[in-house]
Amino acid sequence: MSLAHGRTYLAIPGPSVVPDAVLRAMHRASPNIYEGELPDMMPGLTADLKRVARTDGHVAIYICNGHGTWEAALANTVAPGEKVLLLSTGFFAQAWGRVVSARGIEVDILDFENGGTFDLDRVEAALKQDSAHAYKAVLAVHVDTSSSNRNEFAPLRQMLDDLGHPALLMADCIAAMGCDRFEMDAWGVDVAITGSQKGLMCPPGCGFVFFNDKAAAARARLDRVSVYWDWTPRAHPEAFYQYFSGTAPTHHLYGLRAALDMIHEEGLENVWARHGLLAKAIWAACEHWGQSGPLRLNIADPSLRSHAVTSLAIGKPDGRRLREWCASEAGVTLGIGLGMARDDDPLSEGFFRFGHMGHVNAHMILGLLGSVEAGLAALDIPHEPGGVSAAARVVSGV
Amino acid sequence: MSLAHGRTYLAIPGPSVVPDAVLRAMHRASPNIYEGELPDMMPGLTADLKRVARTDGHVAIYICNGHGTWEAALANTVAPGEKVLLLSTGFFAQAWGRVVSARGIEVDILDFENGGTFDLDRVEAALKQDSAHAYKAVLAVHVDTSSSNRNEFAPLRQMLDDLGHPALLMADCIAAMGCDRFEMDAWGVDVAITGSQKGLMCPPGCGFVFFNDKAAAARARLDRVSVYWDWTPRAHPEAFYQYFSGTAPTHHLYGLRAALDMIHEEGLENVWARHGLLAKAIWAACEHWGQSGPLRLNIADPSLRSHAVTSLAIGKPDGRRLREWCASEAGVTLGIGLGMARDDDPLSEGFFRFGHMGHVNAHMILGLLGSVEAGLAALDIPHEPGGVSAAARVVSGV
Amino acid sequence: MSLAHGRTYLAIPGPSVVPDAVLRAMHRASPNIYEGELPDMMPGLTADLKRVARTDGHVAIYICNGHGTWEAALANTVAPGEKVLLLSTGFFAQAWGRVVSARGIEVDILDFENGGTFDLDRVEAALKQDSAHAYKAVLAVHVDTSSSNRNEFAPLRQMLDDLGHPALLMADCIAAMGCDRFEMDAWGVDVAITGSQKGLMCPPGCGFVFFNDKAAAARARLDRVSVYWDWTPRAHPEAFYQYFSGTAPTHHLYGLRAALDMIHEEGLENVWARHGLLAKAIWAACEHWGQSGPLRLNIADPSLRSHAVTSLAIGKPDGRRLREWCASEAGVTLGIGLGMARDDDPLSEGFFRFGHMGHVNAHMILGLLGSVEAGLAALDIPHEPGGVSAAARVVSGV
Amino acid sequence: MSLAHGRTYLAIPGPSVVPDAVLRAMHRASPNIYEGELPDMMPGLTADLKRVARTDGHVAIYICNGHGTWEAALANTVAPGEKVLLLSTGFFAQAWGRVVSARGIEVDILDFENGGTFDLDRVEAALKQDSAHAYKAVLAVHVDTSSSNRNEFAPLRQMLDDLGHPALLMADCIAAMGCDRFEMDAWGVDVAITGSQKGLMCPPGCGFVFFNDKAAAARARLDRVSVYWDWTPRAHPEAFYQYFSGTAPTHHLYGLRAALDMIHEEGLENVWARHGLLAKAIWAACEHWGQSGPLRLNIADPSLRSHAVTSLAIGKPDGRRLREWCASEAGVTLGIGLGMARDDDPLSEGFFRFGHMGHVNAHMILGLLGSVEAGLAALDIPHEPGGVSAAARVVSGV
Repeated sequence: MSLAHGRTYLAIPGPSVVPDAVLRAMHRASPNIYEGELPDMMPGLTADLKRVARTDGHVAIYICNGHGTWEAALANTVAPGEKVLLLSTGFFAQAWGRVVSARGIEVDILDFENGGTFDLDRVEAALKQDSAHAYKAVLAVHVDTSSSNRNEFAPLRQMLDDLGHPALLMADCIAAMGCDRFEMDAWGVDVAITGSQKGLMCPPGCGFVFFNDKAAAARARLDRVSVYWDWTPRAHPEAFYQYFSGTAPTHHLYGLRAALDMIHEEGLENVWARHGLLAKAIWAACEHWGQSGPLRLNIADPSLRSHAVTSLAIGKPDGRRLREWCASEAGVTLGIGLGMARDDDPLSEGFFRFGHMGHVNAHMILGLLGSVEAGLAALDIPHEPGGVSAAARVVSGV
Repeated sequence: MSLAHGRTYLAIPGPSVVPDAVLRAMHRASPNIYEGELPDMMPGLTADLKRVARTDGHVAIYICNGHGTWEAALANTVAPGEKVLLLSTGFFAQAWGRVVSARGIEVDILDFENGGTFDLDRVEAALKQDSAHAYKAVLAVHVDTSSSNRNEFAPLRQMLDDLGHPALLMADCIAAMGCDRFEMDAWGVDVAITGSQKGLMCPPGCGFVFFNDKAAAARARLDRVSVYWDWTPRAHPEAFYQYFSGTAPTHHLYGLRAALDMIHEEGLENVWARHGLLAKAIWAACEHWGQSGPLRLNIADPSLRSHAVTSLAIGKPDGRRLREWCASEAGVTLGIGLGMARDDDPLSEGFFRFGHMGHVNAHMILGLLGSVEAGLAALDIPHEPGGVSAAARVVSGV
Repeated sequence: MSLAHGRTYLAIPGPSVVPDAVLRAMHRASPNIYEGELPDMMPGLTADLKRVARTDGHVAIYICNGHGTWEAALANTVAPGEKVLLLSTGFFAQAWGRVVSARGIEVDILDFENGGTFDLDRVEAALKQDSAHAYKAVLAVHVDTSSSNRNEFAPLRQMLDDLGHPALLMADCIAAMGCDRFEMDAWGVDVAITGSQKGLMCPPGCGFVFFNDKAAAARARLDRVSVYWDWTPRAHPEAFYQYFSGTAPTHHLYGLRAALDMIHEEGLENVWARHGLLAKAIWAACEHWGQSGPLRLNIADPSLRSHAVTSLAIGKPDGRRLREWCASEAGVTLGIGLGMARDDDPLSEGFFRFGHMGHVNAHMILGLLGSVEAGLAALDIPHEPGGVSAAARVVSGV
Repeated sequence: MSLAHGRTYLAIPGPSVVPDAVLRAMHRASPNIYEGELPDMMPGLTADLKRVARTDGHVAIYICNGHGTWEAALANTVAPGEKVLLLSTGFFAQAWGRVVSARGIEVDILDFENGGTFDLDRVEAALKQDSAHAYKAVLAVHVDTSSSNRNEFAPLRQMLDDLGHPALLMADCIAAMGCDRFEMDAWGVDVAITGSQKGLMCPPGCGFVFFNDKAAAARARLDRVSVYWDWTPRAHPEAFYQYFSGTAPTHHLYGLRAALDMIHEEGLENVWARHGLLAKAIWAACEHWGQSGPLRLNIADPSLRSHAVTSLAIGKPDGRRLREWCASEAGVTLGIGLGMARDDDPLSEGFFRFGHMGHVNAHMILGLLGSVEAGLAALDIPHEPGGVSAAARVVSGV
């Protein structure tokens, strides 16, 4: 007998839960791609996308995943042989770095420890050292989906301005745009990227690159940009097909339209606040359990934690055991530990993650935490009982 | 800001949560109703329905809701002017009684209090008094969706047999077939009825009447049965349309096929056990909260509680307030109190209900309980915190 | 190799093709049935239903199929032992007659031949003979789905009024409401019935009974009406559940809402005109083919033909052969011949039908006719080639 | 009044009609991307994809559209500064050429006229002239979606072999893989590309690059391949995410699985034969109409016509008028003329196209042709009536 039979909850850090309204919008006959409803909806769609990124700049929509947007951002701004500075705080920054190198771009990496955040002194030193302004861009990840840390971008902009360094500031917002507060224009980010499958609540399959005029100017100085990644016709098309360099992602566009309607109907500030309070509920539960056992939040400092994903350490092999129990006995799929491998735990079996991005409410999160508490008990993993009740108290707002 | 935005959970006692597989099966073009896949699937469908009722008897499928099956069961067994004995333990038994009367059938009602169960002595007295065997049937409800009590049928059969009383034993299993254990043949029930929208996990729209040979014989002695309710051609059709006295409920049949596949793949004993353990988790939470406050399970005796629905008293107007909070702040819709009206609470505002029938797992129930615990705190309703953690412990099986 | 692989067209006379918008509206989580969106949408829904029947009277919605509405109409107007006059022009009138009898109602049948229409002289004679006004109702079918004939109701009303006969005039509009023009109030029909699965473009599962004040008064004089069929609370409920005598057909209601939106957005007059022109295209093709072969329209007089269904005779076994070829080789499912059985053709294999009701356009009908023309050629059934081109000319409006 | 209300048919040359089974498969909750059903289905999925291309080689799946696969094929085989030979027979070959150039690859174009096919003598001359084997690849389009011509690849392979020229032979099969016969291995094609939205019957969003060992060796000699386009890990991943260089296109994969099931259940030879016969039916209709009017098939030689798309010339502005009529009056959307612009017709208003790829059957095509015949008549465009009947005769197989 298993208690998992019912509506399961996929609590991995992306793809996130797709709302019924989005799935319903995607369940349709193929539309005409030359005229009519679909082409007509594009101006509103791009405007509403930019509202999510809090930018008045430009947006290019790509048929790709997040990794594709890594390429796109670089393809339009940095030529092979040029150089960038990468501020690494985790697994995905490292992965972006490999994409940079494979494009023939030189990359200097400031490696803050996995789960750490920027040491601004070290960043400043690196930028000062680059008096020739070789760095065409400073690359960093807003939220690392692996460690669940969150980084601040406004101080980087301040520093670049203070130093008069012309490098573009690029933010990978794949994990948490539409979840954690992100204000592209106010924070001075020049290029921001994200995908459809996390805070935007759609299936994977679309990537978005937001850029401002300064970044557009960088594009203009390049000799050559491959047609597929070129953001200029995508952002300012003369014909519908140019939005997508070819055939449009028809069904995703309808899903995205539904998702943006939901976000803006709720209000972006409310969306962010919802993610914030649900994250606090999760932290309260985890800290409660950890009082009498091995469970630890991966990011110790609450001000550096994402509101969209939470990484946890519990010791090998209990991360894996807990995931397996929750899936088979409670109907909840937890995220695997990613990029946490150590010598005694090469498969990151001592870690796991909660995704809580996008279409998530109190019911889903409290059910998640209740399931984990049940799993801890079932597997005889030491913990202080009562975590889910602690989370309920946070949810109550009392 | 609200924490309700996400996938909402409808925790009312029916219609229940429809599995994605069922909705997907119903999202299809209309099928041919004269030959092919749909007619061909009927023998398997009726066989699998009967497995859910634990009967080797007959089943008639109706396009109707539960109230329709009340009519159908009577139309085939009791003529106007004849008499039945109704054992009332709640709101829905009373409602069935009104259906009986409106058919011109005389009904003697043994009224056990709302939420009570059969007093076998009183039943025996009534049956003994009917030495002329005027009662053509004894009607009772298995689980009353309003009070959430559950009644035993095997003792009734034993009594009828012991007394040599030929009345048919009829069970209204609308609320809980496929949730609470029910064994039609083993318990000696002659007619059992249910609907598609609770334990069978489909949208409302189909009703099912199971009957054995003894009940079929009762049908045979009637002068007249209206065509729509006549169960004989439905149970033993010569042509496909006779299953439904006309056009088939095409899309519901595909949904039902998917639902029955899920039930039998899990195994009916496992389905019942799942409902049983989840109900115990709910009770543990409620009893925990009630230690320091007004919340009470409506049915004091655990052996009389349904595993599919739970009615709760909390005092006016907190039942209504809690429902409203859970819906607007947590994404959970609780059931209203039904049939609990008292002079000082004509709208049953001091009551509420949990539906936990069909497609429910640990995640859903723990999320429900976590939301309620949050609501109790948010509304400052006295309660002992920790109920959801108590439920998690039950779920853990420890 | 088969040319049937593609989107198939179910061209049977009901259930009809369900629009994507309707299926999409039905693909949803179960809604709350106590308050909120679903209860709130009912006044608009019933108003829009009545617009389809062209009545300012009342409407009761049933969870049932068309056969169920036969019962409902009678249950509210005629008591067992009373009498009705049935004007039979085909298979379904005869079937309704059996429903009448099984309710213990006496029925006098004026049998106009299958596919014929009312002989008003005979109707007048029967009504005059009933000087005691024993007939509580005159029952007739608007369009017989088997023969595809269409009958006029306004003359019947005129006759009843002229004779001062108080019988209710009842119309079975199951086959063609929303397809063939029907104006309940203007034509003086007192009770009209239909189902969800033809012109209303939804899956089978809901029946609708429209009635005026005169019919409501007939209900008031009855001693007893069974609860499920009683139309009074359904038409004028004090609580939401009374609309449906119990649990609402939740998903069908959402589908119906979408279907009514489509009908009224197009405009009912336009819907009728569309069916009219498409029917003319079908007739043109069939008459063209019949110039050099056995194919015949079942209803010779165009003014008596339905615009929703067309019955055809072609000779045994070519009706069956043609159906089989179209299904297996072209992706079109034709309707079987129904109720046309003769001694040399007990299975009506010499007949077939086209359903062209509801969600049908020029493309679908021309594809249907093209497939039939291909089938006639493939099976070497004599015919004058060019029928589909003749139909295209009708569609062109030239 | 319009006859368009009904199930509309999108007869443009892609995106094609998505089968209900595919849409249904995509209407699902997000799956786990780390383990379970989705990762487990990949080996079968790639095997079944390769069966469609008739290759035992390798396949890389990309989240991109057809234009993306142009990049991918080049990124793995030709370095910037190297050279290719492009055999242009239409609009899309020219567009591919621009992608080549933008990558910094030198391209020699043999321009056969739009709608023409390879002049093998000219190809041979060009290859002979390249005695240094500067051409790393010979690029050509199998079916040009604009002109609807179809080219032969086997003779190109023969020529390359005869000349001992090591250039890779690359085929753009976007328009017609799964429609027109294409046998990658037998014909000696080294790299073949296609997308999800035509013969593969899925929404746009996935691209597929098939390559053999010779092409894999070309990849190995490149210094640098950008991570996103690198086909090696995609074709031979060690972890699931490598199939897609990041997050998987979860919902498309389920849709693709359903589509491949349909293709292989029907049998690829049968799929090709179905497209072939339906194309012949279309040609018969068009040639019939053209006997007395301006309508002309764009490709005069039947042996050079695609079975998936048909381009037609009718004279300005009747191409546009006919498209508009069919959409607004018959429910059929025709494809616009593309790339046919001339001085007196800069918008290609004198042209239009039929898409007949993937999920198409006799009913759909005959309905399309019937609608066009009706439109020709309605718009008073000279034509010989009877085209759709001529097509029906082809469909009959007589």
